[in-house]
Amino acid sequence: MKIPVNLSCVKPKKYTVFVNELDRLDIDAKVMIVTNPTVASLHLEKLLSLLHVKEFHVITVPDGEVYKNFETLNTILEKCFEHRLDRKSVLIAFGGGVIGDMTGFAASIFQRGIDFIQIPTTLLSQVDASVGGKTGINNAFGKNLIGSFWQPRAVYCESAFLKTLPKREFSAGVAEIVKMAVTFDADFFAWLEKADLNTHEDLDYAITSSIRIKSDVVAQDEKEMGIRAVLNYGHTFAHVVENETKYEKYLHGEAVAIGMVMANCLAQKLGLISKSEFDRVKALLKKYNLPTSYTPASYDSFYDAFFLDKKSANNSIKFILPCSIGSYAIKNDIDKATVIASIREAND
Amino acid sequence: MKIPVNLSCVKPKKYTVFVNELDRLDIDAKVMIVTNPTVASLHLEKLLSLLHVKEFHVITVPDGEVYKNFETLNTILEKCFEHRLDRKSVLIAFGGGVIGDMTGFAASIFQRGIDFIQIPTTLLSQVDASVGGKTGINNAFGKNLIGSFWQPRAVYCESAFLKTLPKREFSAGVAEIVKMAVTFDADFFAWLEKADLNTHEDLDYAITSSIRIKSDVVAQDEKEMGIRAVLNYGHTFAHVVENETKYEKYLHGEAVAIGMVMANCLAQKLGLISKSEFDRVKALLKKYNLPTSYTPASYDSFYDAFFLDKKSANNSIKFILPCSIGSYAIKNDIDKATVIASIREAND
Repeated sequence: MKIPVNLSCVKPKKYTVFVNELDRLDIDAKVMIVTNPTVASLHLEKLLSLLHVKEFHVITVPDGEVYKNFETLNTILEKCFEHRLDRKSVLIAFGGGVIGDMTGFAASIFQRGIDFIQIPTTLLSQVDASVGGKTGINNAFGKNLIGSFWQPRAVYCESAFLKTLPKREFSAGVAEIVKMAVTFDADFFAWLEKADLNTHEDLDYAITSSIRIKSDVVAQDEKEMGIRAVLNYGHTFAHVVENETKYEKYLHGEAVAIGMVMANCLAQKLGLISKSEFDRVKALLKKYNLPTSYTPASYDSFYDAFFLDKKSANNSIKFILPCSIGSYAIKNDIDKATVIASIREAND
Repeated sequence: MKIPVNLSCVKPKKYTVFVNELDRLDIDAKVMIVTNPTVASLHLEKLLSLLHVKEFHVITVPDGEVYKNFETLNTILEKCFEHRLDRKSVLIAFGGGVIGDMTGFAASIFQRGIDFIQIPTTLLSQVDASVGGKTGINNAFGKNLIGSFWQPRAVYCESAFLKTLPKREFSAGVAEIVKMAVTFDADFFAWLEKADLNTHEDLDYAITSSIRIKSDVVAQDEKEMGIRAVLNYGHTFAHVVENETKYEKYLHGEAVAIGMVMANCLAQKLGLISKSEFDRVKALLKKYNLPTSYTPASYDSFYDAFFLDKKSANNSIKFILPCSIGSYAIKNDIDKATVIASIREAND
């Protein structure tokens, strides 16, 4: 005996990323703002002065990737219950990627899912992490291994919050901007080569362009069954670099810069990009003082670490490579020797 | 500046509930079977003899609602990582409602969501909990307060597994069958009055009919924005009864039986059902030795407890009431005195 269950077509999810329009944010519900001590001390007052909201509470959780775990998640959830949030309440993620990932995850499982709003305060999270609905926490087995796909109700990117960002963190954000340009938009890449992201005007344009690219990709492929994987360009290598250096030596964006150079070595070896294209990407990364080389303790261990990554289903590694600037190729049939040779060359 | 993110229309979710077809289950992926010691000792051998699967592991977690918490959830997830499950792996929930809720929740957050299959082994979970995708765990603030909507890939209901079910648990399952009939299907209710669910034939028909009703409802309203709330008939009262008796005195289905009688008192008071309809429902519950009365320590406290329930958004209580047998009414404007009078009468 078979009984079919056919769920009605779910309404397609829609939301808007607002750039420099935070003063228009109006929420007719109870709100919990999740932030960290650094962001709270720098920007909470400004946020509260702009926000039109019925009732709000604030929870600050410790800053940093090491606190993106079950314990902090639980602290956030318990605070929501203590303040009697209900199914109509809204969480606000006010901080960088760590705050965004945890707040989104908490929203997705609080009473089986409530709305959340992203107000990213770092360049990295404005151009990348805040759009796309990937949420999660780390555990002993790795990063973002527990989480959900949960789209925000809206995203508010304010360039004002970036003024206090340390230079190194700013550059780490630039790495993700470069990532989008290399794989999706040659014109944007050429513009970036001439631009100065330390000026307001150029920065706003770069943020808006990156969000547009990211939004287009996510709109086509929310759950990373296809094109969304291209956003991982540089990341397969970066994850190993971060792991080997215990997430201490490099910021995520810095590791991505190194990862892109490694991927580009591989792409050049396979004839997908030219020497001059390789040099142009590296020069752009260097312009923002991003690291472009890394020496693994062991090339074999570096290679083996790919297979611990959650994306390596069925023991084949999927490499996202540029295919001239502005386009991409996905390869999963590259032999070990070629990969290792590329990692070695990236270090030259 | 506004950038829209319009996610493509998600494919409507579809799955099948198979009744007595477990021998056809064939899974081409790594599988983690989540069960408890009782079910494992009684039925795991049989399950493994029927299952066609590439590679499997088994985790047994302690039996009972008190273990439906973050700690057990974490144990399940860690086991999945230890055995290197990936995004194509499948969890199997092999047990009652507690196992189903936790396994479904684990599946929904493991690497941002993998498939799971329900093989419910209690009558209650076969007719109710296993269909519909509500997953979750309890915390200090209440039941099922953390969780997700995550539909199974398939559900396999086997009447063979019900043979070992204690009489009391069997009756608790019957309560949910009665619930579906009272609110949705007068013919099914009339059939139940004459049936003997201790016979195979009648039991199979009752299970199949209940699943059909549940599936129809869930298909229309996955996230309980409307009609799905009707499945909570009896439950608003039952949750308070369970809470007051610390989940020790009554099985969930037993509390639902009491809750339905309370709801029916209210329905009768409001002229929605007749005295004879009230009596027919009560008689059917008594036929399966289900409790039909309960004396709260304080009627005021009982009433106040409604407002702690997660469904009581914005401080109004939504009562699901029968409207003659086979139909329902949803009321959220009933005054306190009438509600308390009904709870009191249910106890007469």
